[in-house]
Amino acid sequence: MPVCNLSLQIIPVVPEEQVYPIVDRVIAMIAESKMKYVVGPMETTMEGELDDLMDVVKKAQALCADIGAERVLSVIKIDYRAGGVTMDEKMAKYKK
Amino acid sequence: MPVCNLSLQIIPVVPEEQVYPIVDRVIAMIAESKMKYVVGPMETTMEGELDDLMDVVKKAQALCADIGAERVLSVIKIDYRAGGVTMDEKMAKYKK
Amino acid sequence: MPVCNLSLQIIPVVPEEQVYPIVDRVIAMIAESKMKYVVGPMETTMEGELDDLMDVVKKAQALCADIGAERVLSVIKIDYRAGGVTMDEKMAKYKK
Amino acid sequence: MPVCNLSLQIIPVVPEEQVYPIVDRVIAMIAESKMKYVVGPMETTMEGELDDLMDVVKKAQALCADIGAERVLSVIKIDYRAGGVTMDEKMAKYKK
Repeated sequence: MPVCNLSLQIIPVVPEEQVYPIVDRVIAMIAESKMKYVVGPMETTMEGELDDLMDVVKKAQALCADIGAERVLSVIKIDYRAGGVTMDEKMAKYKK
Repeated sequence: MPVCNLSLQIIPVVPEEQVYPIVDRVIAMIAESKMKYVVGPMETTMEGELDDLMDVVKKAQALCADIGAERVLSVIKIDYRAGGVTMDEKMAKYKK
Repeated sequence: MPVCNLSLQIIPVVPEEQVYPIVDRVIAMIAESKMKYVVGPMETTMEGELDDLMDVVKKAQALCADIGAERVLSVIKIDYRAGGVTMDEKMAKYKK
Repeated sequence: MPVCNLSLQIIPVVPEEQVYPIVDRVIAMIAESKMKYVVGPMETTMEGELDDLMDVVKKAQALCADIGAERVLSVIKIDYRAGGVTMDEKMAKYKK
């Protein structure tokens, strides 16, 4: 299974002051997954096999529900290439 | 597992005249899945359990690769509520 | 300026029971704009010149703030073709 | 007008080897705009007033058409708060 990139933006439907703590918990869960990831201002992008990436997305939904966001809207982007795609091939030239 | 909504926009990275035939194949695959779905101008939205919806997303990536789109960008939105969410609760008042 | 398609998903960061009333107000504003539009379960898609479509997006942000959503996350998709693109060329075959 | 965040993912509908050169040109245009921005693996996020951000989005569409992408799909996210929102308030704790 090729390596691909998946971005996840989690938008919990909660009063505003509760948004960042919930997002932080999701990012902590991603960090624990041991996948390569980059936190951005609007989404966190991960690199790995699609099955593993999709598992993280599923876990994120359940986690939000568990910690108080009865409803959550997520925006996910997948960059899939049969031969694999890496974050580095896209980012290397823009790293400072 | 609660019923939720998932929207899928598939953007195959191919010469323009090949885009619609590939998207049509993905929509045909969704239709065969027997899930409830609505085709829109920018995405197809499905309703079902998250596991089943995610399987369709995975299949879509592989299908595109199989039919000639070596690379595909996808945009997915999930509307998840612990108690379930339906397309009808959002759309009923706007149906003509 | 070519005709293009723009989809708008508005996610007001408010307690859940306030979400639909705010989204309804945004859709009402779109309806008043006299542009061609289609309401979907996850986004509303409009057709028109890019300048007009972008004005609607800007108005939507301000409107949400005015009616009580101090913060709003929006997801916008643009389908732009130099020669113009219509919702009908994508949807006609899927209309029942 | 409050400062907000806008992310732009540009997906030119062209043969794959032409994608990165076109995306690079869009990022160069963003850099020239003198707005604060962060390049990510799936999108570039900018910070500024909504009018200025929307102008960049419009320019990006025209630029892609000018340099050979007759058709382009874009995914845009806006994070808008009546009192302003910064990338730093979201990113500071994740910077290494």
